[in-house]
Amino acid sequence: MRPPERSVELTQVTEWEDGRARKVQDSLAAEEPLEIRVGGVPLTVTMRTPGNDLELAAGFLLTEGIIESLDQIAGLHAKAPENGLRSNVVEVELKDSEFDPAELQRNFYAASSCGICGKASIEAIRVRGLRQLDSGLRIDPEMLCELPERLRAEQEVFSRTGGLHAAALFDGEGRLIALREDIGRHNAVDKIAGWALLEKKLPLSECVMLVSGRGGFEIVQKALAAGIPILASVSAPSSLAVKLARELGLTLVGFLRGRRFVVYSGESRCVGPPSADRTEA
Amino acid sequence: MRPPERSVELTQVTEWEDGRARKVQDSLAAEEPLEIRVGGVPLTVTMRTPGNDLELAAGFLLTEGIIESLDQIAGLHAKAPENGLRSNVVEVELKDSEFDPAELQRNFYAASSCGICGKASIEAIRVRGLRQLDSGLRIDPEMLCELPERLRAEQEVFSRTGGLHAAALFDGEGRLIALREDIGRHNAVDKIAGWALLEKKLPLSECVMLVSGRGGFEIVQKALAAGIPILASVSAPSSLAVKLARELGLTLVGFLRGRRFVVYSGESRCVGPPSADRTEA
Repeated sequence: MRPPERSVELTQVTEWEDGRARKVQDSLAAEEPLEIRVGGVPLTVTMRTPGNDLELAAGFLLTEGIIESLDQIAGLHAKAPENGLRSNVVEVELKDSEFDPAELQRNFYAASSCGICGKASIEAIRVRGLRQLDSGLRIDPEMLCELPERLRAEQEVFSRTGGLHAAALFDGEGRLIALREDIGRHNAVDKIAGWALLEKKLPLSECVMLVSGRGGFEIVQKALAAGIPILASVSAPSSLAVKLARELGLTLVGFLRGRRFVVYSGESRCVGPPSADRTEA
Repeated sequence: MRPPERSVELTQVTEWEDGRARKVQDSLAAEEPLEIRVGGVPLTVTMRTPGNDLELAAGFLLTEGIIESLDQIAGLHAKAPENGLRSNVVEVELKDSEFDPAELQRNFYAASSCGICGKASIEAIRVRGLRQLDSGLRIDPEMLCELPERLRAEQEVFSRTGGLHAAALFDGEGRLIALREDIGRHNAVDKIAGWALLEKKLPLSECVMLVSGRGGFEIVQKALAAGIPILASVSAPSSLAVKLARELGLTLVGFLRGRRFVVYSGESRCVGPPSADRTEA
């Protein structure tokens, strides 16, 4: 997969190695602010890697609980460039007349203070209407172990800049369905959710999502909003991520490295019952 | 350094390895919301690792440009626990009568949309009053290479949970001055900034800060607010981070691993002039 043009920027830097300094050219992961406006009213600004901006905006609205389906979107477009400068604004029109943009802005801040960071307690999440996951998906643990390598093979931008997070969606057999990269972990996940929303593939109840960073609270929240039953990461989840996953029935896997992983919640979807004789306190 | 009690939580998980599953006990990095109130009005909520909450709140106000000095704080305390539940609220009183809490809340959202995530363009940053760095600090590149190992040796919580970011402050000779950990990179940096504010050590113009994650825009912004002239990370910075660092004279180092690093800005503080004969295009 070729990354979008704007996701990488070249610059001259100084490399120091073993006492020697030299000038070299380096690729940087692009980071620019994106403002999401609903009905003309700014809802949020996120620092993101340019590319797939419409997906990002649509996914954000979904995973933050502002919309539940594509039907609610009447219009979605990037603002036209001004004075030759590229646009960092996505404008969304919602169909439902109950969405008063100013009211939405107030409620959004009031409910979550900062939606992008998932700044909300589990109580606030309940208010957002996240529901118990209902998916009978079962996967082979051996297949799960192969996913990080499949992600890496596809993650072109990352291999150039070393600075991007990725979220990858696989089907139950481990086939890659979609991959998105971003300087922000939540944005990569929102791009996946937005892609699914726009492609009418929600809920993603037969999918596994692998994220490159940690499985924090906000990532779990966003996976739940997209109906994803299995979320895996190569690193550690937080206590609140585990709590939310257990409460709503998400299978949460961490430390997925080589032929080992840890299941924090919903183990029946990816491992058999643990052998009782090997139980440790 | 012993981590605060509340920063780690124990739970039972399932470990899968080479086809075998077993129940084991695991340590999780604690993540809980912290609400920061100014004059009784909620300003923001951040997902953080409990511990050093007062530092976090004070540092947040500083690095987000809401205050510039300790003099402006009239009161800073954690809200008392209610019904036996621990408190996740820090209340701040500001001295200056020009701070109307409701007005501050409006301006805060308007200026940055989401302060914690550093959701602001470089233009907004200028409005915040960040100034050109004025520090004559010079350090030995060999010393710089030793900092990641010094951080790791001290990072106890990390070694237990694998899930925490760290920010460490060193003096010009590479001696560790302060170390803070958090589930969020910005929070670890804010805790350092808050510590310096409360200890009256600002500006940190003779210090080097090392962060465990990437050197993104918001981390650069927070380092500048604390007056830190050299910011290093073991990973890649973003394009906007480099732009801001160059504009305000911060020395930005990335990929600090083994005996190699890359200087993206302000190289004179840590390397001699690069040898012209080794220049590559």
